[in-house]
Amino acid sequence: VPTIADHSERELIARIRTRLSPPAAWVAVGIGDDAAVIESERNHLEVLTVDALVEGVHFDRAFTPAAAVGHRALAVNLSDLAAMGARPRFALLSMALPPALPTDDFDAIITALADLAASHHVQVIGGNLTRTSGPLVIDVTAGGVVRRRQVLRRAGARSGDELYVTGRVGSAHAGLQALQARAAAPELRDAVHRYLYPEARIRTGLLVARNRAASACMDLSDGLADAVSQVCEASGVGADLTAEHIPIAPEVRQWFEARGLDAVREALHGGDDYELLFAVPRRRRRAFLAASRLAGVPVTRIGVCAEAAGVRVDGRTDLADPSAGFRHFR
Amino acid sequence: VPTIADHSERELIARIRTRLSPPAAWVAVGIGDDAAVIESERNHLEVLTVDALVEGVHFDRAFTPAAAVGHRALAVNLSDLAAMGARPRFALLSMALPPALPTDDFDAIITALADLAASHHVQVIGGNLTRTSGPLVIDVTAGGVVRRRQVLRRAGARSGDELYVTGRVGSAHAGLQALQARAAAPELRDAVHRYLYPEARIRTGLLVARNRAASACMDLSDGLADAVSQVCEASGVGADLTAEHIPIAPEVRQWFEARGLDAVREALHGGDDYELLFAVPRRRRRAFLAASRLAGVPVTRIGVCAEAAGVRVDGRTDLADPSAGFRHFR
Repeated sequence: VPTIADHSERELIARIRTRLSPPAAWVAVGIGDDAAVIESERNHLEVLTVDALVEGVHFDRAFTPAAAVGHRALAVNLSDLAAMGARPRFALLSMALPPALPTDDFDAIITALADLAASHHVQVIGGNLTRTSGPLVIDVTAGGVVRRRQVLRRAGARSGDELYVTGRVGSAHAGLQALQARAAAPELRDAVHRYLYPEARIRTGLLVARNRAASACMDLSDGLADAVSQVCEASGVGADLTAEHIPIAPEVRQWFEARGLDAVREALHGGDDYELLFAVPRRRRRAFLAASRLAGVPVTRIGVCAEAAGVRVDGRTDLADPSAGFRHFR
Repeated sequence: VPTIADHSERELIARIRTRLSPPAAWVAVGIGDDAAVIESERNHLEVLTVDALVEGVHFDRAFTPAAAVGHRALAVNLSDLAAMGARPRFALLSMALPPALPTDDFDAIITALADLAASHHVQVIGGNLTRTSGPLVIDVTAGGVVRRRQVLRRAGARSGDELYVTGRVGSAHAGLQALQARAAAPELRDAVHRYLYPEARIRTGLLVARNRAASACMDLSDGLADAVSQVCEASGVGADLTAEHIPIAPEVRQWFEARGLDAVREALHGGDDYELLFAVPRRRRRAFLAASRLAGVPVTRIGVCAEAAGVRVDGRTDLADPSAGFRHFR
């Protein structure tokens, strides 16, 4: 099988370029120089984020198709931009490649990443390729723009603000469990797809930001409990969540319960959903719901911000204990 | 020895933040949210680059102090910005950390990177930390600004333009050889320092760009021969270099020759110098020399661009054969 070791850096860059959309007019210098040069957008702030996928940590190639790796590498960054209310514009792709990586897998990673980029009008303007003796690492830097008064921050929630979450939570985690168990689980097909090919909620983030309907926002990359804790901590408030309002798909709830797991706890702490959490002042509720309807993504009210610090679920403090989110580097 | 495995991600981020300069006024949202938000600079284009250092590929921890790793990780990116004529503004730091990395090494990496950033008024506005089962990977994305008419590209050199290089070439390569050989070599102290702590030629790049004195520019990360080839290929010209004009420090020349190596060939193909190569139209020579004098960095004319494709050194085509720069991923 042809592998990365059979190609020069130059050949691999050429394989990437053929898969990308042609450069937009605002790209003054694209791939192939010491750095990329782009025009900024008037009356906008720039939003920048970086996130890495490491083989064996963030994905297992045994059950994660190469296309999913490429898709996720960009999607997790787009999700961070969405959580700021930003419109994505560009990405830089840095890869550390094990020489044994099959060329077909490399191509599939790039194709999926390029397709997701194109679907969001994101330009891949540069990057870096290197070899590594270790696992595959894909580091994507993404940039976007937002108007100053529309930035969605983690800080800003006030006591009394309602907490909403987009889509459903726990699905990606159940999908991952099904993949890890090599379970057939046709009823989890959607959940598995959500794990492999997460959809960044860019349109929802943008429309809510434009309506100035949220006082705080964060994405759910590390789980719902982590997101609620972080927003609360940054905002200096607490939160009361209602377990039965947490939107868990019926087949996902069944999956967890059939395994003797507490579905609510799994949904609170399972990561990889890439949904958005919003804090919404009561007087902005209609504007928020209008924005989410326009975005075409359902939102669910899961609780309310409170004066008292800490996150309670049906009054219990143990269920959402944020220490589960403090991942040690062991 | 305390290692990365003894800390949570949150603790490590806190260790980074204490070592950074306080955020500038143009940083609207810094470290600690889903993404960073910054103000762009009026009447400037944005310049973006990413470069990774992988342990075992780009540095050997056996003889590279942790401080040098941190310094180099940012310096190689600042060099790319310098080669575009850009003024650096910000960096994003993404690290894949082996759990066994000593906490002291982590701190030393961050301190050196933060110090270099501060010395160039570069703000570290965000990043990402993850663990890895493989080697340490440090991926830095750097951003800067340049005025539209001052962008230095690889393409643009014309036949007859003179080729200049900053500083000296081959020193970093000799320094690396001395480190690899565990040679005492006090006469190579400067060369070793240049390998470990390269200095990006930011001021030279900026002043030459402002004077519009160069028709093309590139940094020497992959060696002088590679840089001349790339500039020529991008510009559709060839080049004639004069071997004796290539600025090799006397002690570096001696080091190579004492080992039976051709000093010119080593200087042409050795990487890691992070000097700048400029193509300068003859009528811009005075403006170019004035800019380099003002920058305080010596420049040396090493040759001239020619109609005939290819890079010749004293008329020979074998010395600068660019295929040495096509590094395979083996």
